[in-house]
Amino acid sequence: MSFTAKITISLKEGMLDPEARAIRHALSNLGFETESLSAARVFFITMDVPGAGDARKKAEEMCERLLANPVIHSYEIEVQG
Amino acid sequence: MSFTAKITISLKEGMLDPEARAIRHALSNLGFETESLSAARVFFITMDVPGAGDARKKAEEMCERLLANPVIHSYEIEVQG
Repeated sequence: MSFTAKITISLKEGMLDPEARAIRHALSNLGFETESLSAARVFFITMDVPGAGDARKKAEEMCERLLANPVIHSYEIEVQG
Repeated sequence: MSFTAKITISLKEGMLDPEARAIRHALSNLGFETESLSAARVFFITMDVPGAGDARKKAEEMCERLLANPVIHSYEIEVQG
């Protein structure tokens, strides 16, 4: 069966994010004042596995082994039927 | 009042995504077979505006003027209280 894991990868609390800072600065130069800005990366990965639990387990392994850097990133996984 | 706009920016349907392709390939090299993989960028932008409608309008302007490239990207905005 096909399941899609939605994986959201973001920087851990307290990590400096120079990209977000640069974007906030650029927005301010365009006249958009913001209180805060953070960014995250989302992957939608569809796989053929027996059940939703397997999809979640695989997605976790993918995060640990490739998609996220466990030192600086945290990740969230949502499995969609 | 403070509102947070969650802005999801992804490539339009049919656009080639070499990054997603490379990640899929790397996952396959690690033994993870996938049916498809797509990626998106999410921004959480908190701003001080009178109402949720203003937050959405500002977020749209930010997308048009800086965050998204309207030729290749589509975007979705969700405003959180």
